Order: sequence, then C-alpha cells, then structure tokens
Amino acid sequence: MTPAQTDTDPTQGHAARHVLSVDAMGGDKGPATVVAGLSMFLKDKPDAHAILHGPKSDMDALVTKHGIADRVTVHDTSDVVKMTDKPSHVLRHGKNTSMWSAIEAVRSKEAAVAVSCGNTGGLMAMSMLRLRKAEGVNRPAIACLWPSRNPAGFNVMLDAGADIRADQDDLLTYALMGASYARNGLDITRPRVGLLNVGTEEHKGRAELKVAHELIGNAAQIGDFDYVGFVEGGDLPSDNVDVIVTDGFTGNVALKTGEGTATLISELLRKSLLSNPMSMLGAALARGSLGRLRKRIDPRRVNGGVFLGLNQTVIKSHGSADETGVAAALHLAYRLAKIGFSDKLAARVASAASLAQDAAIHDETGSLGIGTDK
Amino acid sequence: MTPAQTDTDPTQGHAARHVLSVDAMGGDKGPATVVAGLSMFLKDKPDAHAILHGPKSDMDALVTKHGIADRVTVHDTSDVVKMTDKPSHVLRHGKNTSMWSAIEAVRSKEAAVAVSCGNTGGLMAMSMLRLRKAEGVNRPAIACLWPSRNPAGFNVMLDAGADIRADQDDLLTYALMGASYARNGLDITRPRVGLLNVGTEEHKGRAELKVAHELIGNAAQIGDFDYVGFVEGGDLPSDNVDVIVTDGFTGNVALKTGEGTATLISELLRKSLLSNPMSMLGAALARGSLGRLRKRIDPRRVNGGVFLGLNQTVIKSHGSADETGVAAALHLAYRLAKIGFSDKLAARVASAASLAQDAAIHDETGSLGIGTDK
Repeated sequence: MTPAQTDTDPTQGHAARHVLSVDAMGGDKGPATVVAGLSMFLKDKPDAHAILHGPKSDMDALVTKHGIADRVTVHDTSDVVKMTDKPSHVLRHGKNTSMWSAIEAVRSKEAAVAVSCGNTGGLMAMSMLRLRKAEGVNRPAIACLWPSRNPAGFNVMLDAGADIRADQDDLLTYALMGASYARNGLDITRPRVGLLNVGTEEHKGRAELKVAHELIGNAAQIGDFDYVGFVEGGDLPSDNVDVIVTDGFTGNVALKTGEGTATLISELLRKSLLSNPMSMLGAALARGSLGRLRKRIDPRRVNGGVFLGLNQTVIKSHGSADETGVAAALHLAYRLAKIGFSDKLAARVASAASLAQDAAIHDETGSLGIGTDK
Repeated sequence: MTPAQTDTDPTQGHAARHVLSVDAMGGDKGPATVVAGLSMFLKDKPDAHAILHGPKSDMDALVTKHGIADRVTVHDTSDVVKMTDKPSHVLRHGKNTSMWSAIEAVRSKEAAVAVSCGNTGGLMAMSMLRLRKAEGVNRPAIACLWPSRNPAGFNVMLDAGADIRADQDDLLTYALMGASYARNGLDITRPRVGLLNVGTEEHKGRAELKVAHELIGNAAQIGDFDYVGFVEGGDLPSDNVDVIVTDGFTGNVALKTGEGTATLISELLRKSLLSNPMSMLGAALARGSLGRLRKRIDPRRVNGGVFLGLNQTVIKSHGSADETGVAAALHLAYRLAKIGFSDKLAARVASAASLAQDAAIHDETGSLGIGTDK
C-alpha cells in the first residue's frame, strides 16, 4: 500500500496524516543514520508511513537491512544539497536533490510533514519557494524547544534563525504562531507569551520592541494566549513563560549560547568526576541520577526546529543528529501531522492577521469567528 | 593617611593606583554586604586603600566593625540611586547620591577605578556625563568575562549591555577596546578577536556585520590582535577566541541566557543527586570534585562588568553580588588600577581611531536586505 493510496482510502480519513516525508541525505552522518532513526521511529508508531528521498539503490538496501521496506516508499533522487551550499545556489540548481523531493511530497499532499537534516538556509529557501508563505505571514520563523522548569519540560522560542531581522508585525506573527505551536505541540491550553528584551521595564529596548509589546498585548485575546510582557535571556528556561518571541539573529545567538554553555558544563562535570578515584566511585554510585539528568538536558531530545508560517510544515533536524535525534524529530513531525497542525496554524494566523488589519484601521476589536487551532 | 596624601607622596609613584572608589549603596543586599566584601579584599591586598561612598554614620559603623577604618576614607552622601530609577532621572536628580560621589572620586583622580553594585543604566549614564567618552569612542561598552576552555579560564565579551545597538564603527572600537582589556586584564599578549554572528560563513548576517568584518580585519595589525572572523553563540566558551565582539542587545541576551542555562543545570544536578540515598552517597564522595566544578563556573568569580571607552574606568558589580562577588569585582578593579589601564586603553583607541576613520570610508551599503536565505 503506497502512501498515495492510503491518502485516498475513504475508511482512513486524513490518512496522509500518518505519512512523513524524510530527506535521507544532507546530514553530517549520512543516510544510514537517518534510516536507522526512521526505523526506531516506525517501530514505535505502527500506523506511521514514510516517503524516503535519496538514491534508490542505497535507500532500498538500508530499509531492507532495517526490515522496514513495507512501511517506506522510496523516491529516487540523484543530487544532494551540501552543508556549504548557499541558499541562492540551492534554489537554482536543487531540483534533483533529495531535499527538493522531500518538500514536493508535502506540497502534493502525499505526506503531511517533511523532515530534513540538511542545510538550514537551503531548506528554508526551498520551502518558501515551493510551499509559499501562509496568508498573513511576511517572515516565516523557526521555532525550537528549550529545556525549562515548566511541567511540559520545554519552552518554545522563535525565531531561532529563519531570518536575521524581524519588525514589529513579524514579532506579532511570531507570537500568534508560537502560541499555536505551544498549544498543539506541547498541549498548553493557554500559552503565556513573552517578548525577549534586555530588561523587563517598559522603557527598555529597541523602538520596534516597544511597538511589538503593544501589538502582542492587544492580540492576546484573539490569539488565545496570555501576554506576560518583556522577558530576559535568563527567562528562556523559566516557568513564567511558555513562548519566547524574538528576531532570528538574537534567537540564533541565544540558542547556540545555551547549547554551548550546557556542553561546557557537561564537559567540566565529566572531567571533575574523573579527576580522582574517590569522585569516580561517587560518580558510579550516582550513575542512575546523573544518567537521568543527562537525559533531561540531552539536546537530542529536543531535536527539531519547526518552520512556521508556510502552507505546510517542515522540520529541520540538527545536521549532526544521531539516530536518536532523527527519531525525536520524526516523533515531533508525527505529532504535528496527526493533529493537522498546518491547517490549524494557517487558520489562526490568517484570521488574526485580518483582525490586526481591521484593528489598525478602525482601532476597535471585532468579533471574528476564529479559534480553529484547537 | 588619606588617599589624597598617598597620591602626592613622591616615594609612592602613582599611588592613586592603590586607591579604589567604592559605592556602598544601591546593591540588592545593602551596604553591609559591600563593606564585608571590601574588608575581604583589603585583607588580601595590604597596599590597597578605598574611598567609600554612603551615609557617614552607617559607613563608619561598618568599617569599624570590620576593623578597616584606617584603610578607608568615607565620603558622606545622603541619597541613593534606586534599581528602578531611569537613567534620565538619575542624571537630573543624582548629585547627592553615593554613585555620583563614587564617580567624582575617579574624575578628580583621588581614586583610580570606581566600583558600584547599583543600577547599570544609571551608572553608565552618570559615568558618561562626568567622565566623558574617550577620544575616538562613540558608544562605550560593558565588557564581561565568560567562563571558557582557554588557559586563562575566561573569554571577554562586549558589549554586554551598555547600549542596545552598535554600528560597524562601534564594533571596530569594541574590538580594539576588548583586545586591550584582554591583554591587560587577562595577560593575553596577542588576543584573538571574533565577531558574533549567526554563522561563520562570510555571506551570513546583517549588513553592518559584513562591513565590521572587514574593518576589524584591517585593524588587527595596529590593534595588536589576531582576527579570527565570525564566531557563533557556541563559541563564547571556546578556546578558538579570546574576545567576542557584538552589539549590546545581543550581548546582554547572550550573557543572561548563559547564566540562566548554567543556573538551570546546577539546579537539576543538585536535585538529581538528592533524589535517592545511593546518589547522595555518591555526591558525598565526589564532594571535592563537585566543589571545584562549582567554583569554576561560579558567576561570583567573574563578577564585574568593566565600562570601556570612558576617560576613567568604572566597574559594575552584579546588583545581587554577595561579599565574595563584591570582593571579586574589587580585585579586578585593583588589577586594572595597578597597571594604569585607563591610560593604556585611551592611548590604544585614540591611535587606532585615525585608522578607523580611514577604513570607514569603505562602502556602507546600509540595508542590503540580506537574509540567511540569500
């Protein structure tokens, strides 16, 4: 049974929601790791299917090796987007790549969500070209999950680096999209949204942040979120906020700073514990607890930057993801596919955008019938 | 012997270099903590003196209690800059505050370096007004120390939040000032300077960063540093770079993100180790090693943001610093005072300023509208 057949089977309803489009190429560790991750994921989700994009003979060998040939359709592609390719190059010369093919499969509705470990700039450029921006969105964003003290264990931060700037309207759109993602991806009924700044006082920060502060506050009701105002870098892991909104330059630096700090501390901790026999013994006794801690802050568990603001959903997995990381990104894709996230998000942003326009013109709050994203 | 007398004693040379100006007020923990930290510091540095700014009766009682009355001159002040005061308010109404008085003591050359735990915005505004910007500096910056894998144990990052923006010329000035600070504060003969961006490829980032990239590269020889090009958030603790240059908005977010991440991990580590008797025993055995690790990443050890680009040096200690933190900031101030850092920095920036002006005639393409997708 091919995914296309599944999609049209009347007994299955929205069956394409079980189908993920997976770019096997372009990750640092090669297609064997991607297929190993896919295999882990498929064994966990018996109703899931995948379309795998890459050179057919290699793909067939890998899926056969993992015993998942009956769950996977291979789309044969000859080219690969390299990590060093510029986005402009990718757009001009990328038609035969596995990445392009992976995006086409969601464009044609054969699959619900696309996942790639490849070049972020290339993936975003290609996704924008082929999937188009959703109505009301000027700049799409990448939303990432940030380990936090919240019950869900994570906060959402966006933009993590889709663009290098964002004006006040973009920041408003990020707030709406981030809230919708938190609701659908993390089950937070009424997400708390904060705007990243250098201080929490109203007079602080750049001019566009002060305008965005007001716009997001005004949109809280229709966006079905609570606006907590300005937050600071130290609030990224806090339990006072669920969604942190910022421009893609700041967000990208913050993300890599957080990861770099966590890596440094892990390194120093390991070195400390191996520094003498007494602490090695101590570490051995505490192994279970330290293992749970390692798991809690393992960046592989939060693998998957979600592209928000396109007509379909694309997920960027870390280029260096191992099979556990790939499987984590696929689980996130599966969850968003099952609930029909792309449609919910589009409806939310489109109706909020028209309201924002009305509000800008008439300076009054209309009562448009929305609330479609859960 | 008062500090003023010390200053003119011919046998002492630049004796004001032993004198620090300390604002006792405005920190979250009050003057008792500041004086306790001062006492720790003075006991460590027998040739150091301090001018302490605050209400005389309170100050006298505190220095007597710590037995440091003979090492401290009190300047009586009645008012305090509050953490919530806006910089504009501080400038208009701050003349009788301890902060103003602390800055006046370096302005009059009675002391070499001023230290305050107070309101950062107020301290910077007042320092700019009274000490004036050094020749060739448009925007002063705050340099902070970042725990790193380098032999010195720290990297320098600036601007940590003196301003919320920086153009290409400001970024060049930050590179020169940061290199001078690394040389004088961390003993790095030829510092390696990097420019913070969202990627290391030359085509990435905002327009002003591409211009600054060229300006800083051209200034490396005269500034006596190596330019390593663009670096990312993950490089802040790396040993590939000593000085990381960025605008004050990004730097402030990065700083607070790093601190927040470190705090979260420490919390989770503690919780993990206390989760069961076996790991508690393990933690007890590894106590020495864990203690050294804690010390290595203790934010109090890196306390002290140095204001660079003024005619004298001012150090901002964390508002929440305890006595160990205050003492750390005073040790940093002492070191910079002893080597005559203010003069060295001014000479370096002034001589490089003419070069910078020549270089700044390069194309300034304003907004190229370049995203990560182009």
